[in-house]
Amino acid sequence: MGALHHAHGELIRIARQHAGPDGEVAASIFVNPLQFEPGSDFERYPRPEKEDEEFCRQAGVDLLFRPRSEEMYSKSQSVVVDENSLAKVLEGRSRPGHFRGVCTVVAKLFNILRPNAAVFGEKDFQQLAIMRRMVRDLNFPVEIIAVPTIREPDGVACSSRNRYLSDEERQQAPVIRAGLTKAADVARNGEASAETIVSTARDVIQSASLARIDYVELVDAETLESIETVRPNSLLVAAVFFGRTRLIDNIRLP
Amino acid sequence: MGALHHAHGELIRIARQHAGPDGEVAASIFVNPLQFEPGSDFERYPRPEKEDEEFCRQAGVDLLFRPRSEEMYSKSQSVVVDENSLAKVLEGRSRPGHFRGVCTVVAKLFNILRPNAAVFGEKDFQQLAIMRRMVRDLNFPVEIIAVPTIREPDGVACSSRNRYLSDEERQQAPVIRAGLTKAADVARNGEASAETIVSTARDVIQSASLARIDYVELVDAETLESIETVRPNSLLVAAVFFGRTRLIDNIRLP
Repeated sequence: MGALHHAHGELIRIARQHAGPDGEVAASIFVNPLQFEPGSDFERYPRPEKEDEEFCRQAGVDLLFRPRSEEMYSKSQSVVVDENSLAKVLEGRSRPGHFRGVCTVVAKLFNILRPNAAVFGEKDFQQLAIMRRMVRDLNFPVEIIAVPTIREPDGVACSSRNRYLSDEERQQAPVIRAGLTKAADVARNGEASAETIVSTARDVIQSASLARIDYVELVDAETLESIETVRPNSLLVAAVFFGRTRLIDNIRLP
Repeated sequence: MGALHHAHGELIRIARQHAGPDGEVAASIFVNPLQFEPGSDFERYPRPEKEDEEFCRQAGVDLLFRPRSEEMYSKSQSVVVDENSLAKVLEGRSRPGHFRGVCTVVAKLFNILRPNAAVFGEKDFQQLAIMRRMVRDLNFPVEIIAVPTIREPDGVACSSRNRYLSDEERQQAPVIRAGLTKAADVARNGEASAETIVSTARDVIQSASLARIDYVELVDAETLESIETVRPNSLLVAAVFFGRTRLIDNIRLP
C-alpha cells in the first residue's frame, strides 16, 4: 500500500535474495479501496508517491507496479475471492470485508505479475495465514515467504500507520510489544493458561493512558482458533487503538 | 465433468485449432462436488471413465487432467471465488451456490494448468458470461473461447444429462428448441415485446405433457439482466424439467 518504511525495505531485500542474480523483483503499490471499510482511513491513508518511487529505486526493485484504482477495478466488478474461516476472527471481526478485499486484490496481482514467490510481513500474521490458505485452496503457483516483524528501536512494530500517532501516543505505543513480551516471559516460566497469559499482556497495555484494547488473544498460528492453553505453534496477538489509529502486533510463545 | 459426447468433441476440436501445431490441448474431467447443490444429481452424475479416456485420446487431447476430489479440495478448504451479479439470476436462482462452485474450480484449474485459452460451450451461456467476468475481474491471463451449441438431429442441445431422460421424455425434449426458435421467428417478424416473445416460447414448450418450465426469460446477453423489449444482444433463455432432469437452452434474437 505504499508509504514505504524500512520494514518494506526488508521485504524487498528478502525478495531480492530469494530471486537471485537472474531473478527480478516487482513491488506493487496500491491503496486498495476494497480492503477499507466505509468510514475507515482510506482517504487519509498516506500516499507519498515520489518518496515511494525513490525508495523502490534505492532498494533495487526492478518493476514498480502502481496502478490507478480505475485500472484495477471495473465499475461493474462483481467477482471476489473470499476466505470463510481464518478471515472471520480477530481482524476480520473488527474489519468485516477487509480480508475479502485483500484476497481479491492479491489474486489480481498474482495474475497480473505472475510471481514465483511473494513476500509478506509477519506483523500482519492473519493476512499471512490467509494468503497461505488462498494459495493452497486456489492452487496459485506462488511461494509465500514470511518475513519477521521489523521494529523501531523502542520495540514498536514498523507500520505506515505509526505516522498517524501524536507524539504522546507514539511515546506510549511500546506498551503493546512490552505487554506481549511480558506475557511470553510468563509462558516461558511455565504458565500455560491463556486467561493468565492474556491478562498479563492486557495489564501492561492498559497501563498506558491512551491505549484502548481491541483484542488480546491466544490463538493457534495456523488455524487462528482461540485456544485455552499454550501448545506448540501458539501465537499471542493484539490490536490496540491509540485515538483513531489501530495498531496490531503479535508474538510467538515459547 | 466428463460423460463426453460429440459436443465435447467440438470443444476439443476448437481448442486444437486454436492451439495450432505447436500448442497443446488439455482436457479436465472432474465432477465438481462444489457446484452441485445438496440433493441434486451429484451422486448419479454419469462417470464413464474408460470411455471418456478413450474419447480424449481419439479427439487428440495431449493432457487429460482427472483429479480425485481429495486432490482438489482439502478438508479445510475455505477459499472460494464468488460472482455477485450475473450469478444471482436464472440458473443462480434455481441453483444457489452453483456458480460459486464453478468459479472456484475453474480458478483452480486455471492455476494448475495455466492455459493460454479455455473453451466453453454456448449452451451454458450463463456459465460462459460468468467465466468472462471472472477472467476480467481477477485478471486471469486466459482467453475465453465460446463454441456454438451442438445439437442432436432433432434440435435437442447436446448435454450429458440427456441420458437421464426416459424414452418418452427424450421424444418430447425437442419442444425446448422448437419454442425458442418459434419465439425468435416472431421477433424476426417485428415483435419486440419480451412478454409476447416469452409467451410464444412457453406455449410451445408447455404443449409437451412432460415438460415443466423452470424459467423462460429475455435477457441482455452480457449483463443477463431481464429486458422488456428486444434490443441488440438479446438472448432468450429457458430451463425446463422433464421429470427430475433439468435441461437448458438459449437462442440469440435477430
